[in-house]
Amino acid sequence: MPDKMNSAALLDQIAFDAAGLVPAIAQQHDSGEVLMMAWMNREAVAETLATGRVCYYSRGRAALWRKGESSGQTQRLIELRIDCDGDTLLLLVDQTGVACHTGRRDCFFRAARADGWREVADVTIDPKRLYGGQHPGSAAGHGGHSG
Amino acid sequence: MPDKMNSAALLDQIAFDAAGLVPAIAQQHDSGEVLMMAWMNREAVAETLATGRVCYYSRGRAALWRKGESSGQTQRLIELRIDCDGDTLLLLVDQTGVACHTGRRDCFFRAARADGWREVADVTIDPKRLYGGQHPGSAAGHGGHSG
Repeated sequence: MPDKMNSAALLDQIAFDAAGLVPAIAQQHDSGEVLMMAWMNREAVAETLATGRVCYYSRGRAALWRKGESSGQTQRLIELRIDCDGDTLLLLVDQTGVACHTGRRDCFFRAARADGWREVADVTIDPKRLYGGQHPGSAAGHGGHSG
Repeated sequence: MPDKMNSAALLDQIAFDAAGLVPAIAQQHDSGEVLMMAWMNREAVAETLATGRVCYYSRGRAALWRKGESSGQTQRLIELRIDCDGDTLLLLVDQTGVACHTGRRDCFFRAARADGWREVADVTIDPKRLYGGQHPGSAAGHGGHSG
């Protein structure tokens, strides 16, 4: 990211919804893996641009959610993109370790099969190693992405 | 996609929001390009699974939106995935032509730069060729993805 961002010029063109939120898709910048989808408010976007470390907004906790603050699985922002109608963000990131609280690389590890949803990706890091016990996301209800 | 899908078993595990919708990310299955993000209701997911052709729900028109019905730029479903907490879908698709109503391959063609949002992808199909005039999406307010 450039050193100095004119965040106001960027933020003013994001079409936040009635709740002040915008969906944000995180994609691994080099492999193209879609890692997760979460939400950001204006403050989360501003912080992400200022620090280069991805910060979401947890709807369950109604608070900023600095990705990796409890799990260590941070996301470094490589590039921020916005879609044609300004109401969805795409974050090209460099993901440390895994994006999912289950210890899988990404959150989209279940695929539709004739008999239901089936897991198609393995756990690569034991979730107990990520959180040392209770998953803070589950407890706080901010969704199942690694905290 | 398998010939016979037990759609009910799949649909019942999707966590639709209070409006009965779930965000759906479309990704080109082979290149990894994130093409667009739109919304689906239960009926749209069921139709997509049944036909193998992606159908969204247009919030602006409050109606099913069969991708490509006006533009010819259809999406064939290769695989449907769901995230860990069941409230976001990832559609691995084969996109015909372009996903965006602007004639660009994907909708995320603006990137954050120091002085604001800057276009980073070129138009590959003249939008007039897609719609022969007025973009039906713009007129109907279902967002800026190709209709």
